[in-house]
Amino acid sequence: MLEKYGHGGDLLTAAELYGNGSGGAFVDFSANINPLGPPPGVLDLLREAVSAVTAYPDPGHRRLKSLLAESLGVDREWITVGNGAAESMALLLLAAAPRRVGIVEPCFSEYRQLAGQFGAEVLPVRGTKEQGYRARVQSIAGLLEQVDLLFLGQPNNPNGVQYALDDLRLLAQQAERCGTVLAVDEAFIDFIPEERRQSLLPELKSYRHTVLIRSMTKFYAIPGLRLGFTLAAPELAAAMSGKQVTWSVNGLALLAGEACLRSGRGYEERTRGLIAAEREALREGLLRLGCEVPPGEANFLLLGLPAPWSAAVLQERLGRRGILVRSCAMYPGLAPGHIRVAVKGREDNARLLRQLEEIIAAGV
Amino acid sequence: MLEKYGHGGDLLTAAELYGNGSGGAFVDFSANINPLGPPPGVLDLLREAVSAVTAYPDPGHRRLKSLLAESLGVDREWITVGNGAAESMALLLLAAAPRRVGIVEPCFSEYRQLAGQFGAEVLPVRGTKEQGYRARVQSIAGLLEQVDLLFLGQPNNPNGVQYALDDLRLLAQQAERCGTVLAVDEAFIDFIPEERRQSLLPELKSYRHTVLIRSMTKFYAIPGLRLGFTLAAPELAAAMSGKQVTWSVNGLALLAGEACLRSGRGYEERTRGLIAAEREALREGLLRLGCEVPPGEANFLLLGLPAPWSAAVLQERLGRRGILVRSCAMYPGLAPGHIRVAVKGREDNARLLRQLEEIIAAGV
Repeated sequence: MLEKYGHGGDLLTAAELYGNGSGGAFVDFSANINPLGPPPGVLDLLREAVSAVTAYPDPGHRRLKSLLAESLGVDREWITVGNGAAESMALLLLAAAPRRVGIVEPCFSEYRQLAGQFGAEVLPVRGTKEQGYRARVQSIAGLLEQVDLLFLGQPNNPNGVQYALDDLRLLAQQAERCGTVLAVDEAFIDFIPEERRQSLLPELKSYRHTVLIRSMTKFYAIPGLRLGFTLAAPELAAAMSGKQVTWSVNGLALLAGEACLRSGRGYEERTRGLIAAEREALREGLLRLGCEVPPGEANFLLLGLPAPWSAAVLQERLGRRGILVRSCAMYPGLAPGHIRVAVKGREDNARLLRQLEEIIAAGV
Repeated sequence: MLEKYGHGGDLLTAAELYGNGSGGAFVDFSANINPLGPPPGVLDLLREAVSAVTAYPDPGHRRLKSLLAESLGVDREWITVGNGAAESMALLLLAAAPRRVGIVEPCFSEYRQLAGQFGAEVLPVRGTKEQGYRARVQSIAGLLEQVDLLFLGQPNNPNGVQYALDDLRLLAQQAERCGTVLAVDEAFIDFIPEERRQSLLPELKSYRHTVLIRSMTKFYAIPGLRLGFTLAAPELAAAMSGKQVTWSVNGLALLAGEACLRSGRGYEERTRGLIAAEREALREGLLRLGCEVPPGEANFLLLGLPAPWSAAVLQERLGRRGILVRSCAMYPGLAPGHIRVAVKGREDNARLLRQLEEIIAAGV
């Protein structure tokens, strides 16, 4: 199985399973990374800055925090920089020390895994196919009463749907009432055009129990460097920093993050334009092949394969052709025929559709 | 104070306190990094590999683990790779969940800080000046009975002394009897020539409760990338991995670590030769200036300034001349006149001695 470590993007396991891909490299639809790559100039800047690795990183993340504060319009003391959004989630669990963690399945597997790692019991509610695998907001509000912390993906992984802003408000208010931490995972929200984006960010100061989790590695295409951050009320932010290991965020990640934030809106707009257009083209192609594709707004699509295809068989066939997709068969609430594919550039997406068509035509 | 975040090597705080150093850069004796820099070719390799940051790191650290296993002669399942030795220590605390942590002061401040972060009570014993700030081995053995985990620096930071192998054996056996985890911090042991090195590594298989903590960032001069590892019995190693966040170790750190291990013994021998020679020259110079300098075997020296100099005043005077040193005034067991300096190359060490001489001659 490609998801040996529970996630997509594992090129080493892919090489072990399938050889080296066609032409010595894989086209990786199993990880949801900006197909444009990092902002122009960022890789060159890293090359020039490589000798900075001989010095310790800034343990206070001071420059990046200032840039984030400015770019997001939040006060610095609301920001905690993490060694990837995964560490941000871990710090939140260590700081909040929840006995019970709520999740809305299907969702990012780290919510359950991290909760288990830090000794919390997991209470799930389930999204329904009819709502694109969203859960009813009243179910989530009910779950907030029973748990100490709840993770909510916005947009959610693997289905890419958002909850409406009014629903988020209702949940944030409920979290205040219950004293439950509402952790809204916005790892992929940068891919959504601002006019469509549903985020509590502009009104975050009204909530002491809502935390926004952001990733810088997906949108800016630097997952190898690890960089994420959270926005939370200063008391909670301080508690999270208090659990962080000194120098947890490496020096090149900090430099890259600063460069990405300085790279300007052109790249960001190009990314969002590309993703929106290519996602719809890819979705149409997948529907034509007989897949079920709930409409998502992120840079990936969840799809149900046409019968009798299973994710396992298809993943293996594609892998041998140098294409990696994420099996979602193991997600609670999904089926053996579910996979997730990233939205990449036109040429790559077309290659995926062509290969899928050939494989399906050849039969199981 | 330069140690705003509790450690040396903080160039940003230095710039805030002292301006930009003489000639726009500091000579940094406050962090103990190999003055030769990374092994030949490693920075070039990183420059060539920079575009690897667009893919996720291997969550299993498979290549680096194989190289470590080969180079150290241990089985892979004894190895846990960490995001710096600091994360390795944190993982050990999370895995062992000690209620009480023993430390031998003066020592690396992270032992106490991390124990506090994860809710353990700290019980110290104290080294004595007469023994170069070593503690009596019977005191440490006694402490092992009272705690669930004990950190021991080998060589110890900030004084650079080793405990003899027979003492370590006695402590490891005592740890087995008590069921206490003995965490031997060997972060600086690579700087000690093999014939003088006192390490339980060759007999580690005899102990289920002894963990060796290693750093790759100091000897290989890549602190900005973060890379450490531990050697421990497989059950404990698995428990540590079980507390680690996915992708905690970034991709360039893994690549650099692999390249460092492949770089061969020439660089390692040159480093150890340089450090041994320059440390003795530096020590003689410091003694001539009236400092007290307990003999240490690592790539740094602890020194007591001649009266009436305090670490605070001297650090500030040196800082304004572009030289950073580590104040040790805040270490329990040391005095307001204690500082630590790294052993660097001949020219830098001579510059430190010259500046010290001028400052001391000018008077407080």
